[in-house]
Amino acid sequence: MFKDLSKKIRVGICGASGYTGLALIKILINHPHAEIKFLGANSSAGQYIDDIFPELSPFSMKCEEFENISLVDIDLVFFATPNGFCERYSKELIERDIYVIDLSADHRFDDNCVYGLVEIFREEIIEKSKDACIIANPGCYTTSGILALAPILSSIPDAVDDHIIIDGKSGISGAGRKAETRIIFTELNENLSPYNLGGKHRHRPEFNRILSKIAHKQINVNFAPHLIPMSFGLLTTSYLKLIKNISIVEIRKIFNEYYEDEIFIKILDENTYPNTKWALKSNNAFLHLCKDESTNTLIISSAIDNIYKGASSQAVQNMNLVFELAENTGL
Amino acid sequence: MFKDLSKKIRVGICGASGYTGLALIKILINHPHAEIKFLGANSSAGQYIDDIFPELSPFSMKCEEFENISLVDIDLVFFATPNGFCERYSKELIERDIYVIDLSADHRFDDNCVYGLVEIFREEIIEKSKDACIIANPGCYTTSGILALAPILSSIPDAVDDHIIIDGKSGISGAGRKAETRIIFTELNENLSPYNLGGKHRHRPEFNRILSKIAHKQINVNFAPHLIPMSFGLLTTSYLKLIKNISIVEIRKIFNEYYEDEIFIKILDENTYPNTKWALKSNNAFLHLCKDESTNTLIISSAIDNIYKGASSQAVQNMNLVFELAENTGL
Amino acid sequence: MFKDLSKKIRVGICGASGYTGLALIKILINHPHAEIKFLGANSSAGQYIDDIFPELSPFSMKCEEFENISLVDIDLVFFATPNGFCERYSKELIERDIYVIDLSADHRFDDNCVYGLVEIFREEIIEKSKDACIIANPGCYTTSGILALAPILSSIPDAVDDHIIIDGKSGISGAGRKAETRIIFTELNENLSPYNLGGKHRHRPEFNRILSKIAHKQINVNFAPHLIPMSFGLLTTSYLKLIKNISIVEIRKIFNEYYEDEIFIKILDENTYPNTKWALKSNNAFLHLCKDESTNTLIISSAIDNIYKGASSQAVQNMNLVFELAENTGL
Amino acid sequence: MFKDLSKKIRVGICGASGYTGLALIKILINHPHAEIKFLGANSSAGQYIDDIFPELSPFSMKCEEFENISLVDIDLVFFATPNGFCERYSKELIERDIYVIDLSADHRFDDNCVYGLVEIFREEIIEKSKDACIIANPGCYTTSGILALAPILSSIPDAVDDHIIIDGKSGISGAGRKAETRIIFTELNENLSPYNLGGKHRHRPEFNRILSKIAHKQINVNFAPHLIPMSFGLLTTSYLKLIKNISIVEIRKIFNEYYEDEIFIKILDENTYPNTKWALKSNNAFLHLCKDESTNTLIISSAIDNIYKGASSQAVQNMNLVFELAENTGL
Repeated sequence: MFKDLSKKIRVGICGASGYTGLALIKILINHPHAEIKFLGANSSAGQYIDDIFPELSPFSMKCEEFENISLVDIDLVFFATPNGFCERYSKELIERDIYVIDLSADHRFDDNCVYGLVEIFREEIIEKSKDACIIANPGCYTTSGILALAPILSSIPDAVDDHIIIDGKSGISGAGRKAETRIIFTELNENLSPYNLGGKHRHRPEFNRILSKIAHKQINVNFAPHLIPMSFGLLTTSYLKLIKNISIVEIRKIFNEYYEDEIFIKILDENTYPNTKWALKSNNAFLHLCKDESTNTLIISSAIDNIYKGASSQAVQNMNLVFELAENTGL
Repeated sequence: MFKDLSKKIRVGICGASGYTGLALIKILINHPHAEIKFLGANSSAGQYIDDIFPELSPFSMKCEEFENISLVDIDLVFFATPNGFCERYSKELIERDIYVIDLSADHRFDDNCVYGLVEIFREEIIEKSKDACIIANPGCYTTSGILALAPILSSIPDAVDDHIIIDGKSGISGAGRKAETRIIFTELNENLSPYNLGGKHRHRPEFNRILSKIAHKQINVNFAPHLIPMSFGLLTTSYLKLIKNISIVEIRKIFNEYYEDEIFIKILDENTYPNTKWALKSNNAFLHLCKDESTNTLIISSAIDNIYKGASSQAVQNMNLVFELAENTGL
Repeated sequence: MFKDLSKKIRVGICGASGYTGLALIKILINHPHAEIKFLGANSSAGQYIDDIFPELSPFSMKCEEFENISLVDIDLVFFATPNGFCERYSKELIERDIYVIDLSADHRFDDNCVYGLVEIFREEIIEKSKDACIIANPGCYTTSGILALAPILSSIPDAVDDHIIIDGKSGISGAGRKAETRIIFTELNENLSPYNLGGKHRHRPEFNRILSKIAHKQINVNFAPHLIPMSFGLLTTSYLKLIKNISIVEIRKIFNEYYEDEIFIKILDENTYPNTKWALKSNNAFLHLCKDESTNTLIISSAIDNIYKGASSQAVQNMNLVFELAENTGL
Repeated sequence: MFKDLSKKIRVGICGASGYTGLALIKILINHPHAEIKFLGANSSAGQYIDDIFPELSPFSMKCEEFENISLVDIDLVFFATPNGFCERYSKELIERDIYVIDLSADHRFDDNCVYGLVEIFREEIIEKSKDACIIANPGCYTTSGILALAPILSSIPDAVDDHIIIDGKSGISGAGRKAETRIIFTELNENLSPYNLGGKHRHRPEFNRILSKIAHKQINVNFAPHLIPMSFGLLTTSYLKLIKNISIVEIRKIFNEYYEDEIFIKILDENTYPNTKWALKSNNAFLHLCKDESTNTLIISSAIDNIYKGASSQAVQNMNLVFELAENTGL
C-alpha cells in the first residue's frame, strides 16, 4: 500500500512527553522512511519537545493538543496515550484513511482491530491493514509472555496442563512518567514487590484472549507482575506442566521452527540465561528454554525492553509491516 | 541450658569478612547476652575487622585463621563460611561441647543436625539442643519459601496439587562478597536475569526435603531463582493449585493460627503487597495471601532480608532459642 | 532540666509521613527515655502510621492534624515539616514551656534560636536551652560541610584563602517524599546532575552564616549541590587553599584535638576514603583529610546519612543534650 | 588520505572484552565505512564475542591473542587495553603504515603522538595524521573537564585565578570489566566515595599537560574523582575564580563562539542543568555555565558518557577525522 519509497510516511505521535512517546521519537527521527509531522502532548502543549527531553536536540518540535492535528498531511498516528484517549479519536482517523497504532490498552479487546504482535499474527496484520485500520499494539508483559508461550500452545496445545503460571518482572518505566509518590526513587531503589496479584492486572485478560486464540482452546493463566528496581527491561518466567512426554530437544525444535525467520527473536542455548540488558533499546526478545525433568515442567524465560519491544519499537515494526517496508527498517 | 544470665555467651564468627559475617558482628556487638571472642577469616587473617568494614568502628578485633581459635573460652561458633568449610570442623567442636550454627549448606541434609527454621521447628530445636549440637541454618530462598508454604502443607496438604512453583528473586548480596566479574556493578545495574533453572540451585533439594517433612508426603517443587539489581532483600512468589474448595477466609485463618504467636511473621492484608525494603536489617518476614478465584490458585508472596532473616539474624534467633533467651533478644 | 529519669520525655513528631519523620519514629520507639505521644501529618491525617510504613509494625498510632495536638502532655515537638510550617506554631509552644526542635529551615537564621550542631555549639545549646527554646536543626549539606570545615576555620582562619569550594552530593531522599515527576525512579536511576548552582540553594546562606560565626570573619562559600542516584547518604568535598605553610600532620592534629571527645566523628586515615554507606542509619560523620602538596590545597571529604546525622538522629542528639541524657542515648 | 569511499576502513579492536571494546564494536558494526577485521582479547582468546556479549548477536567473531593479528589487511587498530599494552606494539604498527588509536593512557604524554580531543585539536590532528600515526585518545575525566575549561583558558587565560578545582563524578564502568571485590554491586549500590585524592589519579597530570598547552601558561589543577552508583555517565564540576570583571553574557559568548561549529557540544541555557543520562550512548557533551556573582566564581558543569565520548565514540570521531569522513559518521 505504500510502495512509493520516494515519499515518507507522515506520522503523528500522541503522548509525546511519556517514555513510550520519547522512544517513538528517537526511533522515528532516524527512520529513513518516516517523518514526524505532529507531536501531541496535552499536558505539555506549547512546550518544545527538546526542552522536555534535551537529549533529543538538535531535533525540535512544539508539542500541541491533539485537537490541533492537521489531518490532511498525516498517514499514521501513534497513540502512546493514557487508556481511554485513543478510542475517542480512532474511528474518525480511520474514516479519513489514517492508520492508527494504539500503544494503549483501548483496542486490544476490540474484534474490529488487529493485534499487532507481528511474529505471531503477521499474516493477519497484512491482511487487515490493506486499508486504514487500527492496530492494537500489545502490552509489555503480554509481548514477552506470548512470545514465550506461542510456539508450544500453537504446536502442541494438548501436551501442556492448563495451569499456566506467568511470573512477570518489569522495570519502573512501565508505570509511566508521572508524579506519583509510590514511584519516586527513594520508594523503589533497593526494593522489590509484587502488585495487582490475583488477576487484577489488565494484561491478564489480554493473555487469556490472545493465548486462547493461539491455542484454539480456552486458556486461563495465572499472572503475577512484580516491580523491579531498574528503569528499563522486562522478564517473564513462564511455567508449563507437560502432560505428555516431550523431550527438551523436541521443544527446542518447535521453537526453532516457529521462529525460524524471525530476526528479532533470539533463542539462547541452555547455559545462557537471558539478561534484560541485552534487549535494551532494541526490538529483540531473548528466549531461554529449560525442562525440569524431575517435575516435567517447562520453564520459559523471556527478556525484552518493556518500552521498545514491549511498546515503541514494536509499534514501528507494525508500521514497517503495514507500509510494506523491511520489518527492521530504522530498528 | 544457659540460665545464668550473668554470664555472656562467648561466640566465634567464622567467615567474618563476608556479608553474613558482617551482619552477625553488627547484631552481636549490640546483643546484651553475647560477646564476640573470635573472628575467623582465612583470606583476611591478620587484618582488623574495622579496617575491612570501617562502619564497625569503634568495635575492633583482629581476624584470624580458624586454626587459631582458642576453644576453651567459646560456647558457640557461627560458620558464615563457603560450603565445605564447616563440616571439616563441626564434629570436633561438638565433641568439645561447643555449639555450631552453620549458615553454609554443609549440614542441611544431615539427619544428625537440626534444621534451624525456628517458626516451624522450634520444639525440635529445643529438644535436640539440650547438649551441644549443630544447627543447620536455612538457606535464604528456603527460609522465605518455607515460611510461605508451611501453614498450608502442614494443615491441609491434600488440598493442593503437588505442582508447586516457587519463583525466587534475590538481591545481589546473596552471591557473596568476592571478586567475580559477573557480579560487578556495571554487569548488574539495570539488569535482571534468572539463573540455575531446572533444579540446578542447591536450595531446590532443601525445599523438597523440608517441605516433604512438613507435609508428611513427598513434595517436589519447581524453583527458579532470579538476580535482582539491589543489594539486599529477597522475595519468593509461590503458586499452589488448590484441588479442594477452600476460601481465602479459611486460608487466612490457617495462616493466622499457624503463626499466632510468632513475633517475626507479619501477615499483610489483601491490599498491602510485601515490599522487601520493609524487612531490611530485621528478622521479620512479610507474607501476603491471594487466591486467584478464576484459576483456583493460591499465590503467596513472602519478603525477607536475605542476609538477616535469610541468614544472620535467623542464626542469632537460633542462638537465643538454644540458650534460653527471649527469641528477639538483640534482634 | 530533666534529671528525673523515671519519667519519659513526651514527644510529638510533626511531618510523620516523610522520610525524616519516619527516621524520627524509628529512633524514638527504641529510645529508652522518650515516648511518642503525637504524630502530626496533615496530608495523611486519619491514617495509621503503620499503614503508611508497614515496616514500623507492631508500632501503631493514628496521624492527626497538628491542630489536634494536646499540649498538656507534651515536652517536646519535632517539626519535620515543609518550610514555613514550624514558624507558625513554634512561639506558642515555647510560651507553654514545650521545646521545639525544628528540622525545617524556618529558624536557622533566627538569632533567638540556637543552631543545633552539637559538636560545634554544645555549650551554647546547653546554655540557651535551660528553658524551653527552639533548636534549629542544621541542614543536611551544612551538617556535613561545617563538620569538615570548622576545625580549620575555628583554629587557623587566617591560614586559608577565602575562596572556599563545597561540592555537595546527596541521595534522592533529600528531595523529600512527595509526588514530583523529576524525582521518579526512571528519571534518576543511571543519572547524575547538579542543581541550584550559583548560590540558589538555601544551604548556601546557612553555610555563610554559621561558618562566619565559627571563623570570626566573613566567609562566603561556593556551594554546588548534586543529585546522586541513591536513596540515602551525602558527601561533601570541600576545597580550601592554604595561604600559610601548614603540614598535613599539623592539620590532622587540629582535627584530632577539635573532635577529641566526639563519639560520632570518625577521622579516617589517609588511605581510607569515606564511603557514605558506612554512615547509613547512624549519627556518625566520616571525615577524610588530604593535602594536595602541589597546589597547597586542603581537600576535606565528609560522609553522613542525610536523613540521620543530616536531620533526624541529629535532632535526637539535640534532645538528648537538652534533656541531660547521654548524647548517644538511643542512637 | 582515504578519499576512496568505495573501500572500507579495515579495523582491529584490541581489548574487545571490556566495556570500551564492547562500545567500539557496537559503533563500528553499524559504521558505513568501517569493517572489523580483528578482535583482540588476550584473556578471552578463543571465545566468540557474541558468547561474551550476547546482545551483539547476530554479529559474531572469534577473539584472538594480539599476536595473531594479520597486519596485511588492517588500516587501523584501536587499543582499548590495560595501560602498558599498546606501547609494546604501537611503533611496529606505525612502521607498517597502520594507524593506532590508543584509548589507554600509554601515549598521552608522548610528544610524538597527537592528543585526540577533536574539538580542541582538530587542526593538529589533521596535520599530524597525514601518515600513519598514534592518536592518544583522551581520558574520560579529562575529556569532560577540558571541554569545560578550554574556551576560557584559550580565550582569556589571564582572567582566571590559577587555583582551578575540578570535581569529577564517574559511573562505575570507568573502573573496567574485571573481577575486583571493591566494584561488585553490593559494595557500591547506595554508596558514594571519593578516591585517589591529592593528585593520585593519572588524569591529573593529563589535565595539567593539556590545559597548560591550551592556556599557554602553566596550569596546575586540583582534581578529585568520585565513584557514583551508576554504570555509565560522567560529570565534572569545574570551579574557576575570575580575577577580572567578566559578565556571564561575555562568558556565554566566548563558549558559543569557541564551539560554534561543533555538532557534539551542547551548551545548555542557564536553567537547564546537565543530566548525564542525556549523553548516554552518544558522542555529545552537555555544558552548563554559571557565574556565582557573590564570589566571582565560574562553575562549569559538563556531562558525557564516560565510555562513549569519554572513550569509544571519541575514538571513532578521531578515526572519521583522520580518514576524511564526516566527523559524525556512524555516531
